[in-house]
Amino acid sequence: VQWKPLSLTDIAKLIGAAYAGHERTIRRLATLQQAEAEDISFLSNSKYSAQLRDTRAGVVICKPADAALVPGGCVALQVANPYHAYATLATHWQQLDQGTGQPRIHPMSYVAPSAKVAASARIDAFAYIGERVVIGERTVLHPRATVLEDCVVGDDCILHSGCVIGADGFGFAPSAEGWVKIPQLGAVHIGSRSDIGANTTIDRGALADTVLAEGVKLDDQVHVAHNVRIGRNTAIAGCVGIAGSAVIGDNCTIGGAAGILGHIELADNVHISAFSLVTKSIREPGVYTGIFPLDKNDQWEKNAAALRQLHKLRERLRGIEFGQTSGQKPNPSPEPDDGHS
Amino acid sequence: VQWKPLSLTDIAKLIGAAYAGHERTIRRLATLQQAEAEDISFLSNSKYSAQLRDTRAGVVICKPADAALVPGGCVALQVANPYHAYATLATHWQQLDQGTGQPRIHPMSYVAPSAKVAASARIDAFAYIGERVVIGERTVLHPRATVLEDCVVGDDCILHSGCVIGADGFGFAPSAEGWVKIPQLGAVHIGSRSDIGANTTIDRGALADTVLAEGVKLDDQVHVAHNVRIGRNTAIAGCVGIAGSAVIGDNCTIGGAAGILGHIELADNVHISAFSLVTKSIREPGVYTGIFPLDKNDQWEKNAAALRQLHKLRERLRGIEFGQTSGQKPNPSPEPDDGHS
Amino acid sequence: VQWKPLSLTDIAKLIGAAYAGHERTIRRLATLQQAEAEDISFLSNSKYSAQLRDTRAGVVICKPADAALVPGGCVALQVANPYHAYATLATHWQQLDQGTGQPRIHPMSYVAPSAKVAASARIDAFAYIGERVVIGERTVLHPRATVLEDCVVGDDCILHSGCVIGADGFGFAPSAEGWVKIPQLGAVHIGSRSDIGANTTIDRGALADTVLAEGVKLDDQVHVAHNVRIGRNTAIAGCVGIAGSAVIGDNCTIGGAAGILGHIELADNVHISAFSLVTKSIREPGVYTGIFPLDKNDQWEKNAAALRQLHKLRERLRGIEFGQTSGQKPNPSPEPDDGHS
Repeated sequence: VQWKPLSLTDIAKLIGAAYAGHERTIRRLATLQQAEAEDISFLSNSKYSAQLRDTRAGVVICKPADAALVPGGCVALQVANPYHAYATLATHWQQLDQGTGQPRIHPMSYVAPSAKVAASARIDAFAYIGERVVIGERTVLHPRATVLEDCVVGDDCILHSGCVIGADGFGFAPSAEGWVKIPQLGAVHIGSRSDIGANTTIDRGALADTVLAEGVKLDDQVHVAHNVRIGRNTAIAGCVGIAGSAVIGDNCTIGGAAGILGHIELADNVHISAFSLVTKSIREPGVYTGIFPLDKNDQWEKNAAALRQLHKLRERLRGIEFGQTSGQKPNPSPEPDDGHS
Repeated sequence: VQWKPLSLTDIAKLIGAAYAGHERTIRRLATLQQAEAEDISFLSNSKYSAQLRDTRAGVVICKPADAALVPGGCVALQVANPYHAYATLATHWQQLDQGTGQPRIHPMSYVAPSAKVAASARIDAFAYIGERVVIGERTVLHPRATVLEDCVVGDDCILHSGCVIGADGFGFAPSAEGWVKIPQLGAVHIGSRSDIGANTTIDRGALADTVLAEGVKLDDQVHVAHNVRIGRNTAIAGCVGIAGSAVIGDNCTIGGAAGILGHIELADNVHISAFSLVTKSIREPGVYTGIFPLDKNDQWEKNAAALRQLHKLRERLRGIEFGQTSGQKPNPSPEPDDGHS
Repeated sequence: VQWKPLSLTDIAKLIGAAYAGHERTIRRLATLQQAEAEDISFLSNSKYSAQLRDTRAGVVICKPADAALVPGGCVALQVANPYHAYATLATHWQQLDQGTGQPRIHPMSYVAPSAKVAASARIDAFAYIGERVVIGERTVLHPRATVLEDCVVGDDCILHSGCVIGADGFGFAPSAEGWVKIPQLGAVHIGSRSDIGANTTIDRGALADTVLAEGVKLDDQVHVAHNVRIGRNTAIAGCVGIAGSAVIGDNCTIGGAAGILGHIELADNVHISAFSLVTKSIREPGVYTGIFPLDKNDQWEKNAAALRQLHKLRERLRGIEFGQTSGQKPNPSPEPDDGHS
């Protein structure tokens, strides 16, 4: 970003902080470690307050409770939510940097004749918009973003470089001669205010559409298979894979490289940890995890070997308990929730 | 897809079902839940027969055994394999929708002078075909599909948007000055009737070629490393990673986000579950799995902590068994298959 | 590659091996299994010496210790490090094959007016270089490689097809109306002699830059989130995901599809196995692993079911030990390192 200098008074006004000192010119936003005397920084999480003590920033946005830690000579702009103030200021600076040139529809993009692209949308170089596609107001397709035929993208969306919206779902019927392709006749519908990460793929539905509701945020290299439905304001981190016909609720979060099997349903407000695979539907909000703990390799080898024998080990333990507890037959099903889904 | 109306008589003939009622015009294929009076739908898996009872579809393709469940006023077209009939009908409708325009080689694609592209192939915008590449009859490169120099793609293949065929394999020799790149002098050979998913990558071989046999189906975001060989009609779901020089048999299936380590061999008819890592060769057909079970986060924490101590727990159990079984030395290797590969 | 014939004397000189026999013409490099009488091959790992006995290659590069295994009629070129000799020879052949044509900046690429591209760099078709980007000497952007605004790529780098350098990091602040995007105002800085794999993504920093040091090697479909720092000569295999603000040391290796959580630090010389998730910082060099062992599906089901009950099983074992060891209260914390991070 090319930083346009701002006055400290204007910054304070923008973020709703009180400031009545000398006027100063602020050059840029920077981290607490990197900021210099003409820069502004922020502290959101008190966990990092040691960085606040050592900063050379000229101005810091922080909570009132942290203001006492700000070093001498550094101005503290106090707000209730410093992270929100930071987002506001960064957005303001970014907007000042724009409007300088890129054509709205880059001559090296491709827009099919039957596509409808809103007048305020921006289409960058090598972006591809297929037949009958609809692109909403203020939506941005970064270089090489691809929206294939019949797909619909709402207003205020951001499609990052290399994403592919509307490739065929992975559907084949077995036959004596091998796999027979099932034509994928649906499309993809993306609600307004959704972001699609770089190189993320969202496949078109087999008959009905694959649907993302409003405000869905997908990070890079996410894969969404055909017929999936994702609810409002759900955020999905990088490298997640969602298999066909899964239905994900509103306000869920899914950690990086997690997976959702096909036809699974997730209720609203379900949070899946990174690297965890969801193998059956989840009806209750909460945090769910399935990660093999990392260890030094030799320790892992011992535990992994024991894990392969775990059910036998359990049998042996039952045998001992049975022997100890006096000859009665053990309960044949002592662990009713033992079965794997 | 743009739906061209079909007569019910023609549809019945196409899928080999008996129909002798009044002629009707059918507008489109739709799911049981979404179909209206002028639509046709299908029931393949009796598990979803509740949807059949409630459908508003005008016509349903189903097995004879399910025909009694079709609601009054809805026509049941009975066939032995409804999913296959659906594939046939969908393909027919899709073909009616085509032939309307796209040039065979889009002017915004790049085809190197020495490449050989079959006359019936289709090359979309921003697709890239390098020097000496061969593209077979009726093969389709969707927008931004990339086939780099010397690679060969057979007949009737579909290369989805953003796939990269023939990038360099990941080969480096360690040296005192850091990694030394090993030139990747092989290419990629893809057999006929293979499909390559969106943003999937298949690297060129180091010396010999990376080879996919005929009828191989790769979903989106699959990664196939250098020197890999994949057998006929093997299907690989999204986000799978296959490391260098692995050899995979015919008619295998690999679930989403699974992994295959380098130099591993898989026999024919091996099925790997989603999210499972294959760490040694598999000689026998069957289903293989290695997934950490998902749980509520607090339950998972307890089990993960216990798992880190599993081999000690096993030792303690042995100690108890030893104590109980009268002072003899325990068998030093009671679990011969204990070792990790 | 188009192979230009070389004389055996020249090859021996190039790799530093002694050769005083008849002159021969060598057509190409090939694997031990595929090489014919006019080809040269190599044996690096004695594990594969059976292939050496059966080869039909005319010449083989090998260690002195393996020379006795070379079949009659086949010339053995003896060197201390055959893999390094192979890399040298392959590079030589590849360079002979080049210089025949591609323009340095392909007319179907896009280079922004304010970008600085070194005179010796090569920019292929559909590659994209944004405003103010810097591309170093001899760096190659393969077709469709993308470097977005303000990013810097050093000398002698290779950016493979479909990679995206500098898409926005995944940063959002929660608010009553859903997620509020945090502008990503940093860039990406890639040190010299780094390779970026096909369809790999490296996001720009939020305020500071995302930084790769010199000699970093990333395979295909790797995801590097915003603010990450990766040390010199670290190599990362395919499909790895690295979350935001992670810091990775020098000379590390990360196996395929592994993951690193956000804000984690890895010391130098840490080696992470494939498919393993790093959930807390690692201060000591070594090999670290966390893989669920693969098994036949029915065996896995039993072990996975037992795993869900592992902490209860441990409690039962404690109960038995307590009973056996004479009525004293068990140590309330017998396993001090039991806790999960």
